[in-house]
Amino acid sequence: MKLLRVGPAGAERPALLDAEGVLRDLSGLVPDIDGSLLADGAALERIAAAGADGSLPALDATLRVGPPLARIGKIVCIGLNYHAHAIETGAEPPAEPVVFMKAPDTVVGPQDTVLVPRGSVKTDWEVELAVVIGRELRYAADHQEALAAVAGYAVAHDVSERAFQIERGGQWDKGKNCETFNPLGPWLVTADEVADPQALSLKLWVNGELKQDGSTADQIFPVAEVVRYLSQFMTLYPGDVINTGTPAGVAMGQPEPKPYLRAGDVVELTIEGLGRQRQELKSA
Amino acid sequence: MKLLRVGPAGAERPALLDAEGVLRDLSGLVPDIDGSLLADGAALERIAAAGADGSLPALDATLRVGPPLARIGKIVCIGLNYHAHAIETGAEPPAEPVVFMKAPDTVVGPQDTVLVPRGSVKTDWEVELAVVIGRELRYAADHQEALAAVAGYAVAHDVSERAFQIERGGQWDKGKNCETFNPLGPWLVTADEVADPQALSLKLWVNGELKQDGSTADQIFPVAEVVRYLSQFMTLYPGDVINTGTPAGVAMGQPEPKPYLRAGDVVELTIEGLGRQRQELKSA
Repeated sequence: MKLLRVGPAGAERPALLDAEGVLRDLSGLVPDIDGSLLADGAALERIAAAGADGSLPALDATLRVGPPLARIGKIVCIGLNYHAHAIETGAEPPAEPVVFMKAPDTVVGPQDTVLVPRGSVKTDWEVELAVVIGRELRYAADHQEALAAVAGYAVAHDVSERAFQIERGGQWDKGKNCETFNPLGPWLVTADEVADPQALSLKLWVNGELKQDGSTADQIFPVAEVVRYLSQFMTLYPGDVINTGTPAGVAMGQPEPKPYLRAGDVVELTIEGLGRQRQELKSA
Repeated sequence: MKLLRVGPAGAERPALLDAEGVLRDLSGLVPDIDGSLLADGAALERIAAAGADGSLPALDATLRVGPPLARIGKIVCIGLNYHAHAIETGAEPPAEPVVFMKAPDTVVGPQDTVLVPRGSVKTDWEVELAVVIGRELRYAADHQEALAAVAGYAVAHDVSERAFQIERGGQWDKGKNCETFNPLGPWLVTADEVADPQALSLKLWVNGELKQDGSTADQIFPVAEVVRYLSQFMTLYPGDVINTGTPAGVAMGQPEPKPYLRAGDVVELTIEGLGRQRQELKSA
């Protein structure tokens, strides 16, 4: 299923994009799309049944699309998880996953404006496969147990300010948590519809020019290992999100002068089967 | 005012510790203690008035104390913010605040069990002054604007696994987000009752032995500067928490063999005017 949330920011309603591509209202069936819903197998089955029997009202297809998940608990991010991206940043491919965090308040819808922070000269793009957790997970024993906790997948844009991240002392989080820095969606695609999370093409364009063109096949640590690994260090809960890293082609990896984002730029990104985002950049 | 939340984990009710030290029930007056309440000046005035006129029912003083804040948005942490602590870790005092993050799901009550993670041999203690935000803040112009966004203060225990934090590749967050790693409380003391946040004594004992004995006067970046600085990199919202760093005396700073925490140890910590915590360590 393709679950989403449509309507004004902060007042989105739950929706389903059905097999015919028609937007269907879920607000009569479930209160919202969040961790509680993803942990509730019976509710998900009711949505599937209603989607199949044609009983759901259609919605205006021009409604704004919000992030496909409400009340996100935490966003855990994996750094340097594609070989070519690690090399372009000048880093060695890591021996273990590099872990950092974004606050849930950085999340916006897939077509919402992204703000270049005040004082920023190194705002960068990163298309990423986001994993959405649907079951509490502590100390997963193996990849099978880890994958069983995955409710679905979505497109994430892990917007990053490289000077804040790297040149201002300390930890990466400083350049990862500016407002609007995590467009998510359009859809939360349930795991049963993603046959192989390690065979997805990821692409990102800036002002129409293709900048990133990768595949999750090149992930150093695949989804199952990322989830298993993280569960050794923290408990994962329904409604948590994991941004699994970006392929090569970010601005930081280009020759000087590096083409960092500026107000007026337009970024588009897509992951195979998970939909497409488009953001215009503005000044904060 | 001293605001707190009492009752079983996940079902706490809001309460006030009144001027006579009697625990008073606030559940007839406000739904909970969270960012919405802290942003609502009229509601805070109603609590103050009810506390003064003796109309609030008394509560059983033996109830479990939970964290004093529900629905925490994010926890932003400052590293190496006391001169002597920076030196004991072998680091230079930082030129700018070092920023990392903890997930709100790490928060437990001040007397709750702290779990030593599986595989951990370097679980460490850190008493910290926590700042609670009560007003949205973006790009604060000065310290006055920053302090006006502070709703209150609390004791935080920033439990840390040093091997996960430092020796496992990448960013500190990996050693800061284990379950139960952020005891908070007992009280949220409103800012009007903290005359000078830079003149508070902080102490921490392990098994009765004094390990940390500092003062917020020794912070490299005082509260007003930490809040102003963070607001240049991220938006702060009501219900966000900032852990402002720990003074010297952590296990990592001791001679070998360093006395890291083990199951059965008891940690007690206190900050002047903000109350006292006590946790027993158990194995995860």
